Amino acid sequence: MKKILGIDVGGTKIIYAVLNEKGDFLTDIKKISTSKQIDDLVGQFRTIINEYENQIDIVAFATAGAVNLNNTRVESSTPNLPLGYNSIDFSSLSNKPVYVENDANAAAWAEYKTGAAIGDNNTIIITLGTGVGGGFIINGSLLRGKSGRAGEVGSMKIQGRGRICTCGRKDCFESYASGSGLKFTAIETAKNDDLFLTSIYKSKSPEEITTYDIINGLKENDEYSKKVFNIWQNDLTVGLINIVNIFDPDSIVLSGGMGEFADIEKIEDNINKEIVVSKVKVKLAKAGNYSGMIGAALLACDKF
Amino acid sequence: MKKILGIDVGGTKIIYAVLNEKGDFLTDIKKISTSKQIDDLVGQFRTIINEYENQIDIVAFATAGAVNLNNTRVESSTPNLPLGYNSIDFSSLSNKPVYVENDANAAAWAEYKTGAAIGDNNTIIITLGTGVGGGFIINGSLLRGKSGRAGEVGSMKIQGRGRICTCGRKDCFESYASGSGLKFTAIETAKNDDLFLTSIYKSKSPEEITTYDIINGLKENDEYSKKVFNIWQNDLTVGLINIVNIFDPDSIVLSGGMGEFADIEKIEDNINKEIVVSKVKVKLAKAGNYSGMIGAALLACDKF
Repeated sequence: MKKILGIDVGGTKIIYAVLNEKGDFLTDIKKISTSKQIDDLVGQFRTIINEYENQIDIVAFATAGAVNLNNTRVESSTPNLPLGYNSIDFSSLSNKPVYVENDANAAAWAEYKTGAAIGDNNTIIITLGTGVGGGFIINGSLLRGKSGRAGEVGSMKIQGRGRICTCGRKDCFESYASGSGLKFTAIETAKNDDLFLTSIYKSKSPEEITTYDIINGLKENDEYSKKVFNIWQNDLTVGLINIVNIFDPDSIVLSGGMGEFADIEKIEDNINKEIVVSKVKVKLAKAGNYSGMIGAALLACDKF
Repeated sequence: MKKILGIDVGGTKIIYAVLNEKGDFLTDIKKISTSKQIDDLVGQFRTIINEYENQIDIVAFATAGAVNLNNTRVESSTPNLPLGYNSIDFSSLSNKPVYVENDANAAAWAEYKTGAAIGDNNTIIITLGTGVGGGFIINGSLLRGKSGRAGEVGSMKIQGRGRICTCGRKDCFESYASGSGLKFTAIETAKNDDLFLTSIYKSKSPEEITTYDIINGLKENDEYSKKVFNIWQNDLTVGLINIVNIFDPDSIVLSGGMGEFADIEKIEDNINKEIVVSKVKVKLAKAGNYSGMIGAALLACDKF
């Protein structure tokens, strides 16, 4: 059975471990801080690979950014990684075959092969974190598009309220359905709804309310927080309905920090009431925090 | 070389002819009116098939409605076809193999194999007619979804102005980008913009203005008509940007009655200014009025 060195490159940390071709971890998972300088970062990659090269068959990277169709380079700009990151030829970093995959795609693959979407040959994994990302499995294959950049679902302009997104455009799905979107909805609601006046956060100014406050307010049974969360969840549902109508998938899997707070059953009901395609299941991700590494390792095994 | 009897079933007429496996027509194209009663309609199918059965290898239907993954039945309701249409087992209509495909998918396949999108392995054909339809080619295959219903892009709720769609929901892409959408935009603009007061249509009430009036107004250089059309085209572009950001396709092909009036170059420029994936080409369909028959025939050849 092949052994794969999985390396997940994030803006703040790099995590790595050796996996087998089923996605099981064979070593401890190690973490280091991501270097802010490109030469140092490449040095970190080389050091990690040197440590394991004689005991593995393949190196598999999961990384932010759009990956080329050969799975050897990151082609887009990646604001959280050092300048020059898209000049790295990952295949040159090891004598063993090297595979690079976009982290959202890799995580989606892990959900499909080992997580919540096993057996769902048409499934879409939506990551609800600081931003909104998407990984699309169509007929058992990843949707990559002509250049590997497909799946930019956070930029979908949905039916909204004219909200300005961090990208400068209006009504992006991400500006509503992300963690930041929840904060924007909290501010909007505090300014426009009297429920705020009796909320546990009434002493704060609207702009001071955080995403965490609203999540905490749900636990405290705060009516304002519940209303904010409900609006957030309805906006999320608008975007999911669009996606389901286009893809007619078996399932939608919600992952990321915000996913675990969503009312999966209610979202599924509301989607199935509105769609014009056949009914869909909504599921919570379960491939875990290391799904990027797992998915990249499994995809690398398929290629090499 | 195989010979295929192609039959395109529309709400008002059935058109049919014999094609070869390249999609060339080997006989004249015949038309009859679509029967409004299910038994009569099945009778029409049998008569057409009997006429050609001894000189062909395959029967290929293009039809409205969602087709099952076996390509033997229509599974959705089809408002323009008689009640009971989805009870027809098309495979029982002939001794030769029978293939059924959704007409939008079939037309998309014809564009990909013989029309504007030859060589574009990732391409999306958007039909702008009375409604808005989509056919999606991903990595050289049709997007079908779990039940054959994928591609319902007209139901995508886009960034809009709260417009009520004929389906009763708000801000559906179809309510803006269809021919009827142009009429709604004409009414909206006539009520809100002084340009109407100097328009060639100023003697009409807003509700009397038709889609045709606006198209005619463009030729007459009428400023009001130009403004209406520009708003329509911008709304269309909003939806196309969403689609491109999700699929990262080589091309978008515009077809249908409204497609030919669109300013392809301007739409392409505006899409490419906004998308976060790599640049896309926008093209005008050229597989022609019989693209449904052609695409169904070609797909049937691939299957049988």
